[in-house]
Amino acid sequence: MLRFIGVVESVKEGLSSIRIFDEFAEGLKGLDTFSHLIILYWFHLREGEEGRSVLKVVPRRHPGAPEVGVFASRSPSRPNPIGLSVSELVKIESNILWVKGLDAVEGSPILDIKPYLPRADAFSAAVVPEWMLRGPKT
Amino acid sequence: MLRFIGVVESVKEGLSSIRIFDEFAEGLKGLDTFSHLIILYWFHLREGEEGRSVLKVVPRRHPGAPEVGVFASRSPSRPNPIGLSVSELVKIESNILWVKGLDAVEGSPILDIKPYLPRADAFSAAVVPEWMLRGPKT
Repeated sequence: MLRFIGVVESVKEGLSSIRIFDEFAEGLKGLDTFSHLIILYWFHLREGEEGRSVLKVVPRRHPGAPEVGVFASRSPSRPNPIGLSVSELVKIESNILWVKGLDAVEGSPILDIKPYLPRADAFSAAVVPEWMLRGPKT
Repeated sequence: MLRFIGVVESVKEGLSSIRIFDEFAEGLKGLDTFSHLIILYWFHLREGEEGRSVLKVVPRRHPGAPEVGVFASRSPSRPNPIGLSVSELVKIESNILWVKGLDAVEGSPILDIKPYLPRADAFSAAVVPEWMLRGPKT
């Protein structure tokens, strides 16, 4: 059902490279006119039934977090192990994208790239519970 | 590979209801402490090969848009027909979520719900090309 359109080839000091497979490279036309991208990837290390059957987690990276449902967390363990990162586009070299701020580990399959549109995607005043403000961003 | 965790049951005047299937309802615990959600859904009307083989589009809802790659557009025709909407959570009634601003049509299968985290997801100053500012938000 899903198709992998690319792969995270390298991650170093916050800079990641993504190789888009040749057969999908045409889909990148005009992408360099956007500063930020929404990158959907596959949490391939959690694709087994064990990870996909988790419905509640205690987000341990956030001190003081209570037990919450996986849909109230960004845990990679979830029914569909799809990851999402908003990333800054640094440059495009042929079918290689260089981005900052991608959470995905090396080897992660890429599912989709979407342009980030502030009118639709930026909600600076969105409310989160207090525990989510402690620790890493996600 | 993918699992549908719910479905868009109704869409009326910008307010949508999503039914999360009973077997996934535990995953909603604590979701009501967030004001906005990232909703991933399946563009089921474009899941055929015809839609999934499209790599370039002219975004006609945006006057003056050039031909661009699907990854530089939010077109539902794309290799993996996954839709993404940031939506305001209005209320949760048992396993029914009421949200505003969901682009998905009635009957769309839901793939994932993630909490919206301004620290990670809000980039108000992200740059887009001029044509993307004309017409609808996405």
